[in-house]
Amino acid sequence: MTDRFRPAARMAGIAPFHVMEVMGRAQAAAAAGRDIVHMEVGEPDFATAEPIVEAGIRALREGHTHYTLALGLPALREAIADFYRRRHGVAVEPRQVVVTVGASGALQLALWALIGPGDEVLLTDPGYPCNRHFVRLAGGVPVELPVSPDTGWQPTAAQIEAALTPRTRAVLLASPANPTGAVIDREELARIAALLRERRVALIADEIYHGLIYEADTCTALACDADAIVVNSFSKYFGMTGWRLGWAVVPEALLRPVEKLAQNLFIAPPTPAQHAALAAFEPATLALLDQRRDEFRARRDLLLPALRGLGFDIPVTPQGAFYIYAGCGRFADDSSALCLRLLDEAGVAATPGLDFGPHTARTHLRFAYTTSRERLGEAIDRLGRLLA
Amino acid sequence: MTDRFRPAARMAGIAPFHVMEVMGRAQAAAAAGRDIVHMEVGEPDFATAEPIVEAGIRALREGHTHYTLALGLPALREAIADFYRRRHGVAVEPRQVVVTVGASGALQLALWALIGPGDEVLLTDPGYPCNRHFVRLAGGVPVELPVSPDTGWQPTAAQIEAALTPRTRAVLLASPANPTGAVIDREELARIAALLRERRVALIADEIYHGLIYEADTCTALACDADAIVVNSFSKYFGMTGWRLGWAVVPEALLRPVEKLAQNLFIAPPTPAQHAALAAFEPATLALLDQRRDEFRARRDLLLPALRGLGFDIPVTPQGAFYIYAGCGRFADDSSALCLRLLDEAGVAATPGLDFGPHTARTHLRFAYTTSRERLGEAIDRLGRLLA
Ligand SMILES: Cc1ncc(COP(=O)(O)O)c(C=O)c1O
Ligand SMILES: Cc1ncc(COP(=O)(O)O)c(C=O)c1O
Repeated sequence: MTDRFRPAARMAGIAPFHVMEVMGRAQAAAAAGRDIVHMEVGEPDFATAEPIVEAGIRALREGHTHYTLALGLPALREAIADFYRRRHGVAVEPRQVVVTVGASGALQLALWALIGPGDEVLLTDPGYPCNRHFVRLAGGVPVELPVSPDTGWQPTAAQIEAALTPRTRAVLLASPANPTGAVIDREELARIAALLRERRVALIADEIYHGLIYEADTCTALACDADAIVVNSFSKYFGMTGWRLGWAVVPEALLRPVEKLAQNLFIAPPTPAQHAALAAFEPATLALLDQRRDEFRARRDLLLPALRGLGFDIPVTPQGAFYIYAGCGRFADDSSALCLRLLDEAGVAATPGLDFGPHTARTHLRFAYTTSRERLGEAIDRLGRLLA
Repeated sequence: MTDRFRPAARMAGIAPFHVMEVMGRAQAAAAAGRDIVHMEVGEPDFATAEPIVEAGIRALREGHTHYTLALGLPALREAIADFYRRRHGVAVEPRQVVVTVGASGALQLALWALIGPGDEVLLTDPGYPCNRHFVRLAGGVPVELPVSPDTGWQPTAAQIEAALTPRTRAVLLASPANPTGAVIDREELARIAALLRERRVALIADEIYHGLIYEADTCTALACDADAIVVNSFSKYFGMTGWRLGWAVVPEALLRPVEKLAQNLFIAPPTPAQHAALAAFEPATLALLDQRRDEFRARRDLLLPALRGLGFDIPVTPQGAFYIYAGCGRFADDSSALCLRLLDEAGVAATPGLDFGPHTARTHLRFAYTTSRERLGEAIDRLGRLLA
C-alpha cells in the first residue's frame, strides 16, 4: 500500500531553519520565567517607522484592500525607480521594477523564470539558507562557492571564473551578506559583472541589506551591469519585515516571463503594504531610517570588540547588515552544541552556522545585533562569565 | 552566443491571464472617457469590512509589524480551527492549520510537498487557471478532467475513477468552482473522498468560495475525509483579497514538509493581515459578511435570468462564488473575439473562457457579478442592445 501522504522526493533535501530549534527552546525558557537575550533574530527590533505605518493606516481607511496589478502599484514602481536615481545615480525604468512578496518572492520569480533542470547556480557558502532550496525547487543545481575571511567572506571574480561551467546560468551574490555582514568591494563587483556579461551568465544581486552599510564604499550591481537582476526588500533597512514586501529590478528580456509567473504564483503583492511603502521614500522617513542605521552601527561597534575580546575569531570587520559571524573554534568543536549551551547556561540565543551551509558551519555562529545596546551589554557580561 | 536571459523551458507552458488583456483594454477605454461595466474582476467590489480593517489598524498602531512564525499566529490558527467546529461541526486541530500567503500560497505548499516529477494531478477543465501551472512548477503532470453542464460542471466519482492511473497522486477539486460557481453535491463528494482514500490518492479541496454559497447544501471536504487537504482564503467571503492571506488544513503526515517549505518560500504570511483576520470570526463581522453574501445572491438572481433571456446558454444554476459561466455559441464562434466585441461595442468587460482551460474555452465566457445591481442592470441593457 503506498503512503497517501508520502512527501515528494525533494523534501528530503529541504532543510528546516535550525535557528527555529533555538528559538523554540528560547521561547520555552522565557515562558518558564528565564530572561533570554535574543541575538538569533534576523530582523530589526524596531517596529515599522511611523510615517510608513500612518500611510498604511490611511490606505486601509481609504479602502485600498483589493488586488493590485501583479507587478505592483505603478506609483510604487516609479518611486522605487526614482530611488535608484537619487540614491545611486543609476537609471532604472519603472517598467523594470517588479514589486514582490518580499525578497523571498523576488528570488523565486527570478530563479523560476531563468533556471530549469540541470542548470547550475553559483551561491556562496555561508549564505542565505533559502537560496539553495529556491534553486532546487526550480529544478536547478546549487553549486557552492566556499567563501572565507581571506577574501572578506565574498567570492572573487577569479574564484567565480574557476567555478563556471557550460551549465552555469546564474551567480547569486548578496552584499551586505547574511550571515557575515560582508560587503563586496566595488572594483571586484565590476570585475565579476564584466566576467558574467562576457560569459552570458546572469548576475542576481541580493541587495536586501542595502541601506544598512557602515564604512564600506559600495554600489548597487546595476551600476556595474545595467542587466543585473537585482533583488531587494522593504524588510530590513525599511523595517517592514512583517508586511511582506520586496522588489526586483529585471532586464527587459525577463519582464514578460516574470510577469506571467507573478500573476500565477502570487496574483499580487499585499496592497496595504504597497501603499504604506510609498511613504518609505519621503525625506523625513529616510532620515528616520538613517538614524536607525546609525544605531545598528553603534551596536556593531559595541558588540564586535567585546566578542573579539572574549576570544571569538572575527578577522574581518562586518560592514553591513546586522550580523556578526563569529568563529567559535576556541570554545567548541560544534557550533550547534555551543548555541544550545549559550542558551541554556547564559540565556543568550544565537544562530548555529549550520543554517548557512556546511562550509564553515561547525566552527561559526551568528550573532544578530537586533536588540538594544543595553541588552547586548547584558549578553556580553553573561558570555564573559560563561566562557572566561 | 547563448542568450543570457533565455527563459527556462517551463515558461513556454505558462500562460498569462488572458483577462489581463481585457482589463488593459478596459482601462485604456476608461482612461479615454468611456464608461465600462466591469464584470471581469474576480474579487468582491466591497472594501474589507470595517471590523477587520479596524483590527488591522490597531495591530499597526501596536507595532505588530515583525515576522510571525512560518505557520502563522497561534491565535489565528486556533480561530480558524474553531471556525470549522462552529460552522461545519468538524474537528480540526489548530496544529493542522497553516496560515499562508493567500490560497495561492496554500496551493503551492500542498503541491510542492506532495508532487514530484511525473506525478499526476487531476484538475477540472474549466478550472482555476493557476492550478495547472502550480502542478507543472512542482514537476508534476496536470491531467484534465473535462467537466460539463451534464454533471453540474463538477466531476463525478466514476469519472475520477476512470482517470486514475498508478501515477495519480492527487485530485484537486474546487467547490464552489471558478469559473462556473458550481457546487459539488454532498453525496458525490463523499463518494469521491471514499474512492481516493481507498486508492491512496490525496484529495485537495479548494474551498476559497465557501461562505458564498446560495441554495446548495454543501460541506467542507473535511466532513467527508478527515485527511483531506483543504485550501481556503480570506480573499473572497472575508473580502480581504489585497491583504494576501489564506490557509490550508493539512493532515498530520504533511505538517513537517509544509512547515519546512513555508519557512523557506515565504518566511511567514503578512502580519498586519493576520491580526486583522482575527476580527473576521467575530459574530458581528460574520453577520456583515453574510449580508454581503446575500447581496451577491441578489445579484445572481438579477443577472442569471437576464443573461438567459438574452440567449446565453446557462443550463445549470450557479450555486456559489460570484461567477456565471455562460455559453455564447449563439453569438460567436470564438469567445475571446466576443469578449473584445462586448468591451469595444457595449463597454462591458467579461473574461474569455480561454483562461480556464481549453475544454469549453471557445464557447464560453465568464461574467463576474462583482459590481452593483445598478451597474449589472446597465450591462444587461447594453448587452441587450448589442446582441438583440
Ligand atoms: C540575504 C537575504 N535575502 C532575502 C531574505 C528574504 O527577506 P524578505 O522576504 O523578508 O524580503 C533575507 C531574510 O532574512 C535575507 O537575509
Ligand atoms: C478557485 C481559486 N483558488 C484560489 C485562488 C487564489 O486566491 P487568493 O490567493 O487570493 O487566496 C483564486 C483566486 O481567484 C480562485 O478563484
